[in-house]
Amino acid sequence: MDYQAVLNEIAEEIKPYVGEGKVADYIPALAEVDPQQFGMTLTLFDGTQYSVGDADTPFSIQSISKLFTFTLALDAYGYDLYRRVGREPSGNPFNSLVQLEYEHGIPRNPFINAGAINVTDALISHYDSVARTSKEILSFIREIADDGMIESDKEVTESEMQHGFRNRALANLMKSFGNLDNDVLEVVHTYFEHCAIAMNSRTLSRAMLYLANHGEDPITGKKFITPQQAKRINAIMLTCGHYDASGDFAFHVGLPGKSGVGGGIVAVIPKVMGICVWSPALNEQGNSLAGTKALELFTSKTGLSIF
Amino acid sequence: MDYQAVLNEIAEEIKPYVGEGKVADYIPALAEVDPQQFGMTLTLFDGTQYSVGDADTPFSIQSISKLFTFTLALDAYGYDLYRRVGREPSGNPFNSLVQLEYEHGIPRNPFINAGAINVTDALISHYDSVARTSKEILSFIREIADDGMIESDKEVTESEMQHGFRNRALANLMKSFGNLDNDVLEVVHTYFEHCAIAMNSRTLSRAMLYLANHGEDPITGKKFITPQQAKRINAIMLTCGHYDASGDFAFHVGLPGKSGVGGGIVAVIPKVMGICVWSPALNEQGNSLAGTKALELFTSKTGLSIF
Amino acid sequence: MDYQAVLNEIAEEIKPYVGEGKVADYIPALAEVDPQQFGMTLTLFDGTQYSVGDADTPFSIQSISKLFTFTLALDAYGYDLYRRVGREPSGNPFNSLVQLEYEHGIPRNPFINAGAINVTDALISHYDSVARTSKEILSFIREIADDGMIESDKEVTESEMQHGFRNRALANLMKSFGNLDNDVLEVVHTYFEHCAIAMNSRTLSRAMLYLANHGEDPITGKKFITPQQAKRINAIMLTCGHYDASGDFAFHVGLPGKSGVGGGIVAVIPKVMGICVWSPALNEQGNSLAGTKALELFTSKTGLSIF
Amino acid sequence: MDYQAVLNEIAEEIKPYVGEGKVADYIPALAEVDPQQFGMTLTLFDGTQYSVGDADTPFSIQSISKLFTFTLALDAYGYDLYRRVGREPSGNPFNSLVQLEYEHGIPRNPFINAGAINVTDALISHYDSVARTSKEILSFIREIADDGMIESDKEVTESEMQHGFRNRALANLMKSFGNLDNDVLEVVHTYFEHCAIAMNSRTLSRAMLYLANHGEDPITGKKFITPQQAKRINAIMLTCGHYDASGDFAFHVGLPGKSGVGGGIVAVIPKVMGICVWSPALNEQGNSLAGTKALELFTSKTGLSIF
Repeated sequence: MDYQAVLNEIAEEIKPYVGEGKVADYIPALAEVDPQQFGMTLTLFDGTQYSVGDADTPFSIQSISKLFTFTLALDAYGYDLYRRVGREPSGNPFNSLVQLEYEHGIPRNPFINAGAINVTDALISHYDSVARTSKEILSFIREIADDGMIESDKEVTESEMQHGFRNRALANLMKSFGNLDNDVLEVVHTYFEHCAIAMNSRTLSRAMLYLANHGEDPITGKKFITPQQAKRINAIMLTCGHYDASGDFAFHVGLPGKSGVGGGIVAVIPKVMGICVWSPALNEQGNSLAGTKALELFTSKTGLSIF
Repeated sequence: MDYQAVLNEIAEEIKPYVGEGKVADYIPALAEVDPQQFGMTLTLFDGTQYSVGDADTPFSIQSISKLFTFTLALDAYGYDLYRRVGREPSGNPFNSLVQLEYEHGIPRNPFINAGAINVTDALISHYDSVARTSKEILSFIREIADDGMIESDKEVTESEMQHGFRNRALANLMKSFGNLDNDVLEVVHTYFEHCAIAMNSRTLSRAMLYLANHGEDPITGKKFITPQQAKRINAIMLTCGHYDASGDFAFHVGLPGKSGVGGGIVAVIPKVMGICVWSPALNEQGNSLAGTKALELFTSKTGLSIF
Repeated sequence: MDYQAVLNEIAEEIKPYVGEGKVADYIPALAEVDPQQFGMTLTLFDGTQYSVGDADTPFSIQSISKLFTFTLALDAYGYDLYRRVGREPSGNPFNSLVQLEYEHGIPRNPFINAGAINVTDALISHYDSVARTSKEILSFIREIADDGMIESDKEVTESEMQHGFRNRALANLMKSFGNLDNDVLEVVHTYFEHCAIAMNSRTLSRAMLYLANHGEDPITGKKFITPQQAKRINAIMLTCGHYDASGDFAFHVGLPGKSGVGGGIVAVIPKVMGICVWSPALNEQGNSLAGTKALELFTSKTGLSIF
Repeated sequence: MDYQAVLNEIAEEIKPYVGEGKVADYIPALAEVDPQQFGMTLTLFDGTQYSVGDADTPFSIQSISKLFTFTLALDAYGYDLYRRVGREPSGNPFNSLVQLEYEHGIPRNPFINAGAINVTDALISHYDSVARTSKEILSFIREIADDGMIESDKEVTESEMQHGFRNRALANLMKSFGNLDNDVLEVVHTYFEHCAIAMNSRTLSRAMLYLANHGEDPITGKKFITPQQAKRINAIMLTCGHYDASGDFAFHVGLPGKSGVGGGIVAVIPKVMGICVWSPALNEQGNSLAGTKALELFTSKTGLSIF
């Protein structure tokens, strides 16, 4: 298939949608991003990349980082991790706190904020230090993205610390149920730090290869998690990857994916490729509007849905 | 692959699980079923079938019928159907009524009871008669199952009518929001009637072929719905097919599937086969315990997960 | 105290508020009522009445009837009644169904719809017939109001039957939990029937005397319930008498009271008098806007709050 | 009435209940209290006191302090205080967080934890310093209790700080909605500090006189709040003073009251007296079991209910 031609077509057809929606504005660092940007990259198993648009512009990966911390925690804890965090879709955002309360402080899945904060806490306990946890997360992401220059944006982290009261509420609620080992502020800070990592669509699509290839990097041959763990991460991405629009994403796109409030969306086509699309303006559910549309066009044009 | 050998292995390994759990007991007709039964059938696109165990014993398909009424309604209404019913996972059962209330009488998806009752109502409006609706549903199921003798069990229907007060509560609540066209008792009766259809694992696995084959029956060549509609039904099965254990099913089995309280579970491997497994005793989430386990063994042994 | 002068002052000061708000419009029979009406009556223990405005105009008592059915059921069942219905405030209306579900079909108190429907069901079981239940309720109200001509309005009842799907949802939900003895439609019809009773502010204020006088009619000397039961009905009126504005009513008015969607509000000053005020237009919480204001003026002017 | 005789009778009849229930055990300082204690004091408007049992033993007033901070905040802000905190009952404890979320960070009333934390925040803003706020609260309580030696227990405060994660969750959630002015940890610390004030039933019953007497201390003649404000605090005590057992308390006791998890309950008989009863073991709703029972006996024996 001529992937470059497909991307070019998508870039053309997506134009009316780019900038539609609303850039995340709860912290200044995100609010200032120009909404008129769009980039998309496909990375095949041999490392070939096809890109279109602003594929080299770095953006805040935000919730996409939840994939990577979950991978590390799954590797560290195995099946025991599910004592702390579930794998069921979470329903509407209104329910986030009540579900956490009703379910005794066990978050529904690792991709809602409470779940990812809990996973971060698990990593801090595992690595036995906040500093080492941050270092290991960054090091893992650099490795799977094959880019040693990736960094977290301190300004974004500090800005989150000044505004993230709801996340502190979630962490305190889990702590009140005994489902958080470490200091609330340290956990939340570490969480914000990995959300603030900046990448572009090239590096992020590259970073998805191990998930598209059953846990093994197809280029370096390095095995990060078992095939079963990789498949199961993909299953959780499909059912829980886009908050309360997860069903809609599965319905329209038909691929395991994960979105971030910075406007990025990653997806995998099992055994075929890693994908990343980025456009900063978000739809009502908080997922990139043009990005979601672009992925829908991609599966329509290529027939590459898992269904 | 030697599918028969795989099924034989599964039948052997599943033995300790058969009968574990609890048969649905809210109506006498279901409570009397012997839990020590297990049957499983695979149907390939050329019609070849591989079976093991009690594959010819009929059982009440219950919620599996929601797949078929949803197919008919999608064909009749197209995208407009989503004005009445959504496609997002529904969260825990405790939330069923509150979600329906909070979301103004629009059920989250067609596979929870409220959604399926609403779909039945849509069909009654479309066919303009209760009697014709029942006839069309039965006729469609007989066609996709290639079995003209399939019938609904009157005793089960009447028993449901005497106990189904929660379903009437859901229907009345939707009606109070203006999201139900027809008489509550007639809609609920029609719904119970198609839930009470009796089939066995041979006929049900045969009936899944059109969903495994993008809307077209691979044996007769008849097109029931568009490829896109079929893929999207599969996506909804994956995210919403097993109530609040949908995430868990995707996680462990990795296939689009739909369970019923009669102990049946159907699943599809896109472009490959239709599957049905049956064992009456249910796990805590109301899905066949041995059936879920058997499907998990099947994807482990064959590697045929969509992820 | 010159009660007539107080009423005259209130009638003057209330003028800007009469007609403000919105007449209940969910059934035609209520929607047609002229909002520009206001009537108020005080009835002392010796039978002396002070009235102002439209005190002789009959209106639909609606939820005020819940007081009278609760009295009858308390007399019939005593403390056992609280196995079926609680006495705690119910929180916001959004919670009505979820609370009923979360609390296993036991309504929070007898003054929310679910509670009053349950109380009606208890009366049907006690009197062993729908017809006799309706007759006993009407007969009791005629006796405490000292008016043998009081009737229920058939048109209002039938109109409710055609629209009251939420009430049927509540009744079916209770039935699904085993907390409703009789046929859902018969219970709901009986409930609508006593809600549709028409009275005016003279007869309703007269009817409150037994509650102001610890269960005994101060004029006839007839004892309907024990002093303790009467005090406890007053306590429930204070904490639960005005749906989710009960706290606000206690705060502003400081008297046990009960409102109805027909625009009536009754209140008692223990050991002193019965009160009824009526004005059809409702505030956002569904209580008479001018009526609530008039009662607030009354307690301010007379100092007759229980606090 | 011979109040001393009444108290003696109560002390005798209450014996089987003293120690029944469970002492609050979420922090060590409370868990260590001997449950076999019971004290009760009535204080009349002329200062006469009637006591029985352990009336001189100090205990942690805990939530009873909410009455006093609410009084100070009402005096400082007047009606504007209700922009930050409501006055409706709060329903079951399960709803605490969801209600706060659903109602956009505005707590339902000043007597649930979120409401009292918010009131403390209002005081810190008003006094413009944490230190001065603590000083003013203590000074006010010493004045109304006529006891200059009253102190807050540092050990209890620090113990709360080490365990009070749910309260921090509530404060952070309000802060995320913009309904908290000051630093979360400082607000929560100040809140814990006034909860940790130690008093006995003599001083607490004395401290209730201003509320029984429409805002004015009947002994010193000092006016703290307006008569209307005092009546309204009493109304909120009646509807919201005992968490989700407020309806039950109004039903059984029939007096405005406020309980604390230290086992104390205060109540007022308007224009007559202040009351305090203490016994450390709590019932399932978190209110003193023997204390509630003693107050029920008191109103039964004296007929002094407000209804």
